Amino acid sequence: MENLKQKAIEAHRAWHGKIEVISRAAITNNDELSIAYTPGVAQPCLAIQKDPRLSFELTRRWNTVAVITDGTAILGLGDIGPEAGMPVMEGKAALFKCFADIDAIPLCVRSKNVDEIVKAISLFAGSFGGINLEDISAPRCFEIEKKLKEVTDIPIFHDDQHGTAVVVLAGLKNALRLVGKKEEEIAVVISGAGSAGTAIAKLLLQAGIQDIILCDKNGAITSEETYQNAAFTELSYITNPKRKKGTLKEVIVGADVFIGVSAPKILTPEMIQTMTKDPIIFAMANPVPEILPDEAKKAGAKVACSGRSDYANQINNVLAFPGIFRGALDVQATDINEEMKLAAAYAIADLISEEELTEDYVIPSPFDKRVAPAIAKAVAEAAIRTGSIRK
Amino acid sequence: MENLKQKAIEAHRAWHGKIEVISRAAITNNDELSIAYTPGVAQPCLAIQKDPRLSFELTRRWNTVAVITDGTAILGLGDIGPEAGMPVMEGKAALFKCFADIDAIPLCVRSKNVDEIVKAISLFAGSFGGINLEDISAPRCFEIEKKLKEVTDIPIFHDDQHGTAVVVLAGLKNALRLVGKKEEEIAVVISGAGSAGTAIAKLLLQAGIQDIILCDKNGAITSEETYQNAAFTELSYITNPKRKKGTLKEVIVGADVFIGVSAPKILTPEMIQTMTKDPIIFAMANPVPEILPDEAKKAGAKVACSGRSDYANQINNVLAFPGIFRGALDVQATDINEEMKLAAAYAIADLISEEELTEDYVIPSPFDKRVAPAIAKAVAEAAIRTGSIRK
Repeated sequence: MENLKQKAIEAHRAWHGKIEVISRAAITNNDELSIAYTPGVAQPCLAIQKDPRLSFELTRRWNTVAVITDGTAILGLGDIGPEAGMPVMEGKAALFKCFADIDAIPLCVRSKNVDEIVKAISLFAGSFGGINLEDISAPRCFEIEKKLKEVTDIPIFHDDQHGTAVVVLAGLKNALRLVGKKEEEIAVVISGAGSAGTAIAKLLLQAGIQDIILCDKNGAITSEETYQNAAFTELSYITNPKRKKGTLKEVIVGADVFIGVSAPKILTPEMIQTMTKDPIIFAMANPVPEILPDEAKKAGAKVACSGRSDYANQINNVLAFPGIFRGALDVQATDINEEMKLAAAYAIADLISEEELTEDYVIPSPFDKRVAPAIAKAVAEAAIRTGSIRK
Repeated sequence: MENLKQKAIEAHRAWHGKIEVISRAAITNNDELSIAYTPGVAQPCLAIQKDPRLSFELTRRWNTVAVITDGTAILGLGDIGPEAGMPVMEGKAALFKCFADIDAIPLCVRSKNVDEIVKAISLFAGSFGGINLEDISAPRCFEIEKKLKEVTDIPIFHDDQHGTAVVVLAGLKNALRLVGKKEEEIAVVISGAGSAGTAIAKLLLQAGIQDIILCDKNGAITSEETYQNAAFTELSYITNPKRKKGTLKEVIVGADVFIGVSAPKILTPEMIQTMTKDPIIFAMANPVPEILPDEAKKAGAKVACSGRSDYANQINNVLAFPGIFRGALDVQATDINEEMKLAAAYAIADLISEEELTEDYVIPSPFDKRVAPAIAKAVAEAAIRTGSIRK
């Protein structure tokens, strides 16, 4: 790990920025200048003034996504400030390019005020084809995303929420195929009620899973309690239909699936042993998961997934966001809605055939080149089907 | 011209965006992913948290300029809207790359409110090494630039003002060498009191020219009149020391230099004939100048400059802004101050030796490859000399 830290600093110094803006137009003489710039450039300007949709034909908007943070929840590091979040935003922009040929612009915003952030981002929305929000702390991220969706006409996608949820659902779908359980029959316990946990719960509900309990460090969220946090209040109504109370250790008894987006080492082998037959474990705390995959398997888990690349079944957001935005941009989507996210999850899951499916292969590799195109196709179709495209 | 219009639209369709974002990091396997992205990327993040200046070492900020408009004064087209301004912003970004290897990000802002625009731009200032404001209508552009300079810690430069002023001063300096007149002795009349005219007047004052009269369509601006417009009030105090009144035709009598940033064909041969010996004419209205250079020469002008590439002595902003920002970025300048602009102008002028100087060659070609490096060097030195660099 010390070695990796040293290598990472040295690599970042050598890159001197992980992205670069290049010109697609050669401008070496007056003729070229008069077409790419004045006076010729007046023509595409006037065409867009007449029909603003042409900004997707005559400028780079069709392929451009802004990657924006306020620096409040960078990786597991917390609130380290906007400029300090930029290496992650640039990394994300590099991934957008490498995995889906998308032009991504990393931006950081110097405010923690929800309305200020929404206003500033929305005023620049005409410059982009979509906006990927990143590493913004909960519950502010929910409000920022919701308000931005209301005031802009392009897809808004908070990847820490929905990217994670899509990849988890993809892996869970295949894990359920493997153990022969159906979505509507299973009980799921999610540890961690932040942005990722909340989004996972909501997407699993969309996928037909009914019995979901969210736990934070105070135990199960239930409608029998009262919460200050509006996000928790909403969660308390839409999850936990049996109104269970208690700690993770208490509510996990009899569950089929554990999904951890919380803290290192909080799931014990003993807890896994209280779950039903063939338990499925997603332990995604980073870099140290809720339980290591091999320990989970030893305790009886049938399928174990983590965020780590040194174990099988890596749950990595890079599986989802490049293809999702590729599909959205390809059809000039105006939103990334629930159907599009479900389509993305199922497209990922379907890449693994019945014959290939094993307990160590429920999710494709992040470097499987089929993933982004398959997601893009499914997401584009879902956008068209649901009418979420520019008219 | 119809042919150029058609070619420009076709070229813009074919480019499908004149710029593109590329990745400088290869990300093709888990090892590369773990350095460019998680978990390795945490190290540059923590380093910047500890010392925010490292954002200029470990991210692309050191080489990145935002090119921002609100769409209110696009070329000579007026207020055509933010999205419709983007082909110009992209063109500018392409020029930044082609002429000075700068990564420029085109942005448009959906507001015409000064305070909203200032707030939105300032919140994103941590993402950039500098900000080039573009095609924003006067007098709003003055206030936006002034306020942004107050609240940000990076160079703010409204190119329509200062880029034009720098190139005009460069050409004027050489024209004066040619006719053997001194700055402090000449009388200058500027036609057009918008953003360019105002900035030219202020920079010429900095360069030691004392007798400057600005005219708008109502005639000379003088401290004997009262103006609603705060910018005009300021101009009335710092220019027109002899408090002349009257139309352009009246106040140009006896002037040494005419500078037009106003309207087509408003300068007549007869007016030039009322100027002093060896008149110098800058007629820069676009695409039709105040007077065509050959007509000006025929009427007695010693030196005639225009914005047009089909005549000698083209005054083109692309001579200035790439080198100015290159120099500012190279030393992490925190401002682009008066000394830096003067240094840029003199660097351009000095590229033409006494022996080369003729009435048809007072300003280098926009494609002269010596220009941007010469400006960059002079601007960087001026920034250091005046202490306008990051501490």
